[in-house]
Amino acid sequence: MEFRLLHEDSSTKARTGMIFTPRGSFNTPVFMPVGTQGTVKAMSPEELREIGIKIILCNTYHLYLRPGWEVIKKLGGLHRFINWQYPILTDSGGYQIFSISSLQKTLEEGVMFRSHIDGTSHFLTPEKIIDIQLALDSDIMMVLDECCPYPVSYTSAKEALNKTINWAKRSRAYYRGKKAVFGILQGGTFKELRKIAAEELIELDFDGYAIGGLSVGEPYDLRFEVISFTNQFLPRQKPRYLMGVGTPREILDGIEEGIDMFDCAMPTRIARTGTVFTWNGRVNIRNARYKDDESPLDPLCSCYTCRNYTRAYIRHLIWAREILGMRLTTYHNLYFLADLTQKARQAIERNEFKSFKNRVFENFKDFENQEVNNV
Amino acid sequence: MEFRLLHEDSSTKARTGMIFTPRGSFNTPVFMPVGTQGTVKAMSPEELREIGIKIILCNTYHLYLRPGWEVIKKLGGLHRFINWQYPILTDSGGYQIFSISSLQKTLEEGVMFRSHIDGTSHFLTPEKIIDIQLALDSDIMMVLDECCPYPVSYTSAKEALNKTINWAKRSRAYYRGKKAVFGILQGGTFKELRKIAAEELIELDFDGYAIGGLSVGEPYDLRFEVISFTNQFLPRQKPRYLMGVGTPREILDGIEEGIDMFDCAMPTRIARTGTVFTWNGRVNIRNARYKDDESPLDPLCSCYTCRNYTRAYIRHLIWAREILGMRLTTYHNLYFLADLTQKARQAIERNEFKSFKNRVFENFKDFENQEVNNV
Repeated sequence: MEFRLLHEDSSTKARTGMIFTPRGSFNTPVFMPVGTQGTVKAMSPEELREIGIKIILCNTYHLYLRPGWEVIKKLGGLHRFINWQYPILTDSGGYQIFSISSLQKTLEEGVMFRSHIDGTSHFLTPEKIIDIQLALDSDIMMVLDECCPYPVSYTSAKEALNKTINWAKRSRAYYRGKKAVFGILQGGTFKELRKIAAEELIELDFDGYAIGGLSVGEPYDLRFEVISFTNQFLPRQKPRYLMGVGTPREILDGIEEGIDMFDCAMPTRIARTGTVFTWNGRVNIRNARYKDDESPLDPLCSCYTCRNYTRAYIRHLIWAREILGMRLTTYHNLYFLADLTQKARQAIERNEFKSFKNRVFENFKDFENQEVNNV
Repeated sequence: MEFRLLHEDSSTKARTGMIFTPRGSFNTPVFMPVGTQGTVKAMSPEELREIGIKIILCNTYHLYLRPGWEVIKKLGGLHRFINWQYPILTDSGGYQIFSISSLQKTLEEGVMFRSHIDGTSHFLTPEKIIDIQLALDSDIMMVLDECCPYPVSYTSAKEALNKTINWAKRSRAYYRGKKAVFGILQGGTFKELRKIAAEELIELDFDGYAIGGLSVGEPYDLRFEVISFTNQFLPRQKPRYLMGVGTPREILDGIEEGIDMFDCAMPTRIARTGTVFTWNGRVNIRNARYKDDESPLDPLCSCYTCRNYTRAYIRHLIWAREILGMRLTTYHNLYFLADLTQKARQAIERNEFKSFKNRVFENFKDFENQEVNNV
């Protein structure tokens, strides 16, 4: 993997770049749709390409449990298994182990947990997590980390960070090869810990650096204070990935702070119950006011959904719980984010990112006035 | 609407034809996918066209209740509402009123029932049913009928038939215009009643004749005895539509008896839980034996699903309840039926329908040995 920094905005920390992998290249800043179980929910690979998606994220935890990493390995790796020949980033599974499995024990050696599917017991080490991702044959691998809740005591955050750093060292010692591996910075909202995280991980010379442990309930401004503080320590020539972040507002604020990569399941999740992004803010299409509305989801959008379907029909489909409704809204939300990041890249290259962001935010009235993650 | 009889098989009653409507023509025998709520579940209009679908069925009962026929009328009719510019047949809603709504009262005048969605009370007459379908602007309309359960007494079946005939007369008196209207033959499994149904409806000179009231629990052989008996009375120059029928075996047996049109929700419904048709019989892809099976759903099929995805991946998607899984299996099942009916048409035109059917059935081992409707 190679990261090429293309342009730095003259008045913000925003930057454009390009990431090259053996399975294809993509421009940054980039939003990566989440394909938790080996499929971006409701989408086909062809639709993702049509939207302009060049990299997706898959969840190691989910695929490890089902269908099982040995199955995927036997069938020639994840790309072949899911019919997606382009870059895939796999997370380490750490976040899921700490959130949706029944965690049994975090040891210095690794993590013991019970499957959320069938209750079976599993023990995973940093080395095993690398092995699984190598078997999946993903293009960018993430190391095992421990994510803290918010709020958390300094002592607990420090313990989790120490474990995360130790696991990162072991991961790096275990594998340093052709495949890209990203380190994950933890440390909660404690600047001192974030600084240590950055210094220790940079020492290990990862191919990229992820900021983890945010979007777990902390206030919006505090989140961006941590991001801004952390980014100053990260090397200019390596990609920076803000994990689990994804509203349009957060993406633009993140880009302004110099973030290159984003992923979030929220845009596809809220789509399935009828919430869509538009250039005028967030809309829930189930609202009675759209009952006989002939306009597209977003009159400013030129995606497949907006070119072919009315709000009235999509509203009907979502109320009737029809799969096509979820397909159309998901398609639109992913297109919106692809469009947003593309426009952001163009603005950066014209050294106009700040005014671009302000212009977008001016219209995003609804986004500004609501708890964006709380849908 | 015009029906042109193209060819009659030399050794069976099977026949090919073509139906012309202002929105397009299609060959018969034809299988019409069911788009209950204005969408063939899991499919986009483009995918239906890609499969070769030229006519779909929509449910008047469902669309009348939600989003409401006035909404659809206001938005320019059903075709525009659902983004499908090709022929649509709408059923009368009779079957749904008698099966899924809370029926309150069947009067000579019409039917009183409660909505299965919100419990509201509705009264529909044969004339109103025509009005609703005219508002939907469908290409082929069905008259209101009363469908009996199985078994049913002769007296009840006769009463329902009398009402059905009376409603058919009123429907015909109320509307006889440019749009095609089909009559529906009832009469349960009583040959005497089926004969009366045929005679009375033919008198009304409908554009086509549907055999209703079957596939409600009667034995397979009895069903086809009734079909065979009824068909002898139906005019050669009008299309014959066997309502709600749909397994590959039934379609071929129906074609052999001279049926031109079929519809059934079962092929798409069973697809969503992983049951697919193959040229070697029915397969449930959730079975453990497909866990690491690299072959397509059906090695003899050349649909999008079979060209691009393995059984192992589709099995994974279905177990994980992923929408893409339902999309892929639905696509395949509809393609299979489109392929089956096309091959049947070719066989008829070569006067080889009987041997074609026998050859297909020979391989359909699983179909033969299981209760086909009981999935």
